[in-house]
Amino acid sequence: MSTVWGSKIKIAVFGESHSDAIGVVIDNLPPGIELDMAEIERQMARRAPNGGDFSTPRVESDKVEIVSGYFNDRTTGTPLCGIIRNTNTHSSDYDQLKEVVRPGHSDFGYYHKSGGNNDYRGGGHSSGRLTAPLVFAGAICRQLLKEKGIYVGAHISSIGVIKDDGFDARVGAEMFDNLSRQPFPIIDKNKFNSMNFLIQDAKSNGDSVGGTIECAIVGVPIGLGEPLFESVESKLASLLFSVPAVKGVQFGKGYELTKMMGSEANDPFYNLGDKVFTATNNNGGVLGGLATGMPIMFDVAIKPTASIFKEQDTINVVTGENVKLNLKGRHDSCIVVRAVPVIEAVAAIAIYDLLRD
Amino acid sequence: MSTVWGSKIKIAVFGESHSDAIGVVIDNLPPGIELDMAEIERQMARRAPNGGDFSTPRVESDKVEIVSGYFNDRTTGTPLCGIIRNTNTHSSDYDQLKEVVRPGHSDFGYYHKSGGNNDYRGGGHSSGRLTAPLVFAGAICRQLLKEKGIYVGAHISSIGVIKDDGFDARVGAEMFDNLSRQPFPIIDKNKFNSMNFLIQDAKSNGDSVGGTIECAIVGVPIGLGEPLFESVESKLASLLFSVPAVKGVQFGKGYELTKMMGSEANDPFYNLGDKVFTATNNNGGVLGGLATGMPIMFDVAIKPTASIFKEQDTINVVTGENVKLNLKGRHDSCIVVRAVPVIEAVAAIAIYDLLRD
Amino acid sequence: MSTVWGSKIKIAVFGESHSDAIGVVIDNLPPGIELDMAEIERQMARRAPNGGDFSTPRVESDKVEIVSGYFNDRTTGTPLCGIIRNTNTHSSDYDQLKEVVRPGHSDFGYYHKSGGNNDYRGGGHSSGRLTAPLVFAGAICRQLLKEKGIYVGAHISSIGVIKDDGFDARVGAEMFDNLSRQPFPIIDKNKFNSMNFLIQDAKSNGDSVGGTIECAIVGVPIGLGEPLFESVESKLASLLFSVPAVKGVQFGKGYELTKMMGSEANDPFYNLGDKVFTATNNNGGVLGGLATGMPIMFDVAIKPTASIFKEQDTINVVTGENVKLNLKGRHDSCIVVRAVPVIEAVAAIAIYDLLRD
Amino acid sequence: MSTVWGSKIKIAVFGESHSDAIGVVIDNLPPGIELDMAEIERQMARRAPNGGDFSTPRVESDKVEIVSGYFNDRTTGTPLCGIIRNTNTHSSDYDQLKEVVRPGHSDFGYYHKSGGNNDYRGGGHSSGRLTAPLVFAGAICRQLLKEKGIYVGAHISSIGVIKDDGFDARVGAEMFDNLSRQPFPIIDKNKFNSMNFLIQDAKSNGDSVGGTIECAIVGVPIGLGEPLFESVESKLASLLFSVPAVKGVQFGKGYELTKMMGSEANDPFYNLGDKVFTATNNNGGVLGGLATGMPIMFDVAIKPTASIFKEQDTINVVTGENVKLNLKGRHDSCIVVRAVPVIEAVAAIAIYDLLRD
Repeated sequence: MSTVWGSKIKIAVFGESHSDAIGVVIDNLPPGIELDMAEIERQMARRAPNGGDFSTPRVESDKVEIVSGYFNDRTTGTPLCGIIRNTNTHSSDYDQLKEVVRPGHSDFGYYHKSGGNNDYRGGGHSSGRLTAPLVFAGAICRQLLKEKGIYVGAHISSIGVIKDDGFDARVGAEMFDNLSRQPFPIIDKNKFNSMNFLIQDAKSNGDSVGGTIECAIVGVPIGLGEPLFESVESKLASLLFSVPAVKGVQFGKGYELTKMMGSEANDPFYNLGDKVFTATNNNGGVLGGLATGMPIMFDVAIKPTASIFKEQDTINVVTGENVKLNLKGRHDSCIVVRAVPVIEAVAAIAIYDLLRD
Repeated sequence: MSTVWGSKIKIAVFGESHSDAIGVVIDNLPPGIELDMAEIERQMARRAPNGGDFSTPRVESDKVEIVSGYFNDRTTGTPLCGIIRNTNTHSSDYDQLKEVVRPGHSDFGYYHKSGGNNDYRGGGHSSGRLTAPLVFAGAICRQLLKEKGIYVGAHISSIGVIKDDGFDARVGAEMFDNLSRQPFPIIDKNKFNSMNFLIQDAKSNGDSVGGTIECAIVGVPIGLGEPLFESVESKLASLLFSVPAVKGVQFGKGYELTKMMGSEANDPFYNLGDKVFTATNNNGGVLGGLATGMPIMFDVAIKPTASIFKEQDTINVVTGENVKLNLKGRHDSCIVVRAVPVIEAVAAIAIYDLLRD
Repeated sequence: MSTVWGSKIKIAVFGESHSDAIGVVIDNLPPGIELDMAEIERQMARRAPNGGDFSTPRVESDKVEIVSGYFNDRTTGTPLCGIIRNTNTHSSDYDQLKEVVRPGHSDFGYYHKSGGNNDYRGGGHSSGRLTAPLVFAGAICRQLLKEKGIYVGAHISSIGVIKDDGFDARVGAEMFDNLSRQPFPIIDKNKFNSMNFLIQDAKSNGDSVGGTIECAIVGVPIGLGEPLFESVESKLASLLFSVPAVKGVQFGKGYELTKMMGSEANDPFYNLGDKVFTATNNNGGVLGGLATGMPIMFDVAIKPTASIFKEQDTINVVTGENVKLNLKGRHDSCIVVRAVPVIEAVAAIAIYDLLRD
Repeated sequence: MSTVWGSKIKIAVFGESHSDAIGVVIDNLPPGIELDMAEIERQMARRAPNGGDFSTPRVESDKVEIVSGYFNDRTTGTPLCGIIRNTNTHSSDYDQLKEVVRPGHSDFGYYHKSGGNNDYRGGGHSSGRLTAPLVFAGAICRQLLKEKGIYVGAHISSIGVIKDDGFDARVGAEMFDNLSRQPFPIIDKNKFNSMNFLIQDAKSNGDSVGGTIECAIVGVPIGLGEPLFESVESKLASLLFSVPAVKGVQFGKGYELTKMMGSEANDPFYNLGDKVFTATNNNGGVLGGLATGMPIMFDVAIKPTASIFKEQDTINVVTGENVKLNLKGRHDSCIVVRAVPVIEAVAAIAIYDLLRD
């Protein structure tokens, strides 16, 4: 099993939902960087389960202990390891999952892969909880990108069938910052009531809803990305599809492009005041795998949380019996809200990995 | 720039559209395999430009010369290098692109990335022509997968707004084989006329159209894939987004899942005759990054070919002037048809890389 | 900076001599393995500084906390992270090294590499202390190798000019076990007094001595290793030269081979009872990078500890002044003794990485 | 089997001694470099078998065809593939090796590893012939290093028991250039007669001799190298041990250091005219894995050529019989001479990989 990622930097993520700790080793950070700890904590808090309206009742402070690679308030350039203790674990809630696998979940695959040795408590290593170390690594990468004038932001672009507006000409650092300070980051705030209704209605029915997240990255230098296997799109997609519940990724107009003629889809270049722009950005700032200098735009499809409280048909993997599952435990009824900072974080990691000397 | 891919096998792709040759080195193939050369040639021919209705007029035989790693008609286990000569190059067609970049194309990014040293002829290293070595590597992987009862197939699932039927219960080796022998692989043949009309109409207008390709992989063992960064979805997506013109990837119901409730989206497990199935396959045979044993299903969005003959606004990258481009040269007006075997090939490479000891 | 190693498994090592903790993430261990904790502790104790005759006075228990990848007393197959707290740190001892670099040490290189942001306390990330996580990872690999009948052992083959006997026909699991239980592992115990004299004499003079360690690996299957860059020799050497103070590595007769004729150096094959042997093992069990099935034999040169208490000429890196250094702190006067389990550990890691499916 | 190497650049080597071609793909070269083709050819000629006194009678021109990544006489930054055709192959010479394995050679390991599917002609993929692509890649890296004031050179430091002088204070670009233009590169030319006598005597007896090669790299910036696994020593050693017949590597005084006291072995730093030097260079320009700015010095042990014409005891791997081998074919009686440019080449590749942004 492989949990090391990266070319120029490397991140190694470890942990399970109910293991003693989760964390990440980040290799090849530049030395001499004073980390903005307040900002890192703010990013961690955006993702952390806080027991609020859009979160599982499991509350975790997600405080990161940096145990290496940081000295006298600066990075040393050696591997920086951040550790997050798991504290609020009700492991007995998961006893029912020793043998019964949850539909829509990785339990079945892990049971087979590990010969029954998987840590079934809370999804183990495939838990959404493993995105906490990614947010930590992402927060560091974001700080490093900011120094180069590169900013990442995202918003909930849909919950179920209810759509938010898309990013527009205002996209940039200020808009991103505003969005990141909202508990429910959307552009058109009039959509909040409908979206919230879908979520709370699902929650009260023991069900769940999904949605999409739109993300943008501004300030990326022209030509960033590598041909073929390290294209901007490949790098981003390989990390985005590592985030639990992501089932689709599209860049720019994505699937809409397939319905356009080439003459509509192509983004005309023009030169204005010694800077090159494209009149449209249908291709989402990436052509042939390389950045065009326009905002990199993509969205991801997040499926509804697989852990629901409605009775479901499934099997007992040990006996092979067909059984009914009435799930216990604590789960988000809509993971989309807490996934926003995660999508931003992995976007930052991917771009920084391409950019790092 | 990085053009080596893989964990258990490695492929290194090289070449430009108009360089002397293109090719691929494949590392860590098992020894003792007699390659099915006729089948490899058949796969190459599916992708090769043949001057027909759905192809650029540039005709290339795409004959692969295997120069290493193959002895007495068997693989030796050492790196196998396959070389394809570029023969039918009209390089002078591209003189106009020395300074003028094509909208929708990588020319602009490569010019900046390489400080003006890019091979602008025919898109250079970012040309769709580089998918020929991928089809070759894929043909070898397909043969190795077949020995394990794993089959890959695909069809055109849409051209513009015209949709083919989706894969259904008949999905499997026989259906894949039939599709692979059609010059225009679709399931509902009644759609051919409409789709072809869109393509020929675009061609006659100097324009282009896009579409989607649906791909399925059957026989994948339960639990294949690695958590996080080497999930089945991450591996497939990283290669799929390396194929020129791919702008979106979704697994199973993909974006449709975001509109479902969890109780609809979850695929109930059931046991029938000692084999586990899911009653639906909304998740496309992958949960938590691991294979469920159900067919792996995904589709990709292919944008309309960027090279069109209509006049377009663009810039001269050397002088910075805003100019009009009236493109010359030979181009596909719809790349979707020839992309079908490419999508199958990279799917085979990704699955084989996960499966190889 | 890069501290991730491996092809089939991956290890990511982190920490500094005086940071909060050091540790290692080990990826792709097989699931379902019950670790022999007593044996792991025994291996850790072999290396740990215990304040004895052959150790720095800094005493560390080197207790490993496994925080992930281990559940119900078995590996889960997900990344296993082991953390070792640094407890007995006298950081103020190192204040003198903020600006003054130790001859023979990495201080000078790290200062430049990190722009003065290196953790100079105790050698930081380049400290011999970082071999503790390697011994831990090695102990796990040794257990996995043992299940396949592969054993690793080593002894002090020289201290200064005093030589121990070499491994001979008795080399194997039992001899290795005996050696590993000696505080000063040598074959010819008559050499102890002379070797110990050299060490204690150096200690009393504030000086240090070096030596060599011979290592053998038995039971390695014929053909293990990969051509060229993943040869048995390349893999071993890349890890061996990562161990602080190692300045030379030779396989089999090594440098002696350069003085032999081919007819002497070549090891004749012969078949005895359906098993193939070589009459000599001058090549140390590796030919063309692949294992022959004979014991893999190599030795390493360990230079005398760079940290000595005699006055030395050096520079102040901040002011550029030429200065005298009278070192304080706690240091081994001969690192060879404690390096024996480290060399065994990295040998086990390298072989297991080649062997793992 | 793994034949891809590198972190910042990557090289993928392919081919067998008697396959159609051998070659290398080099990834991530900087764009815009005009290659010095005359110098590349000169380096290739230094290694190429020319039928002279110190070479196998097999004559190969080793002309490299660059098929990609090079346009208008400049690198494009995309993968550069160089192909060398095998022309002068007497494959029938090797029929005797279908079943009978050569002592001291990889034949036995490869037979087992490949299940009998190895290309036994001329050593196949493990042939010294595979060093030709390394010399080509090294020639490119040398040119790139030269632009940064870094130079690599080597000489024969011993043949059998006859030793050349070591590098001294004159070490540098001019001395390297002079050595590289000698057919038999030694510093003390008085040693030629004795060394040559050993070689010619071995040849006339159907036997072979080995030796050592000393290599130096000057101009390496302070701090180059990464801690632990990408130390200067680890990187160099991993490539050096990939060169056939290398059985030992030592840096600086290497094994001699084990007989010194720390106070002798440590190299005192001093500052002279704003540049830092060490008074001695016992550590060979590397401390803690990082470059000190002093010349990087190492030597390698090259065993006598395994292919000799004296009758030898060995086995038939198919029948298991003990047999006598009277080898035919064309072989070097001393590979050390032709190995000199190979050692320089891999040294250049290793250093450039560490240095590349």
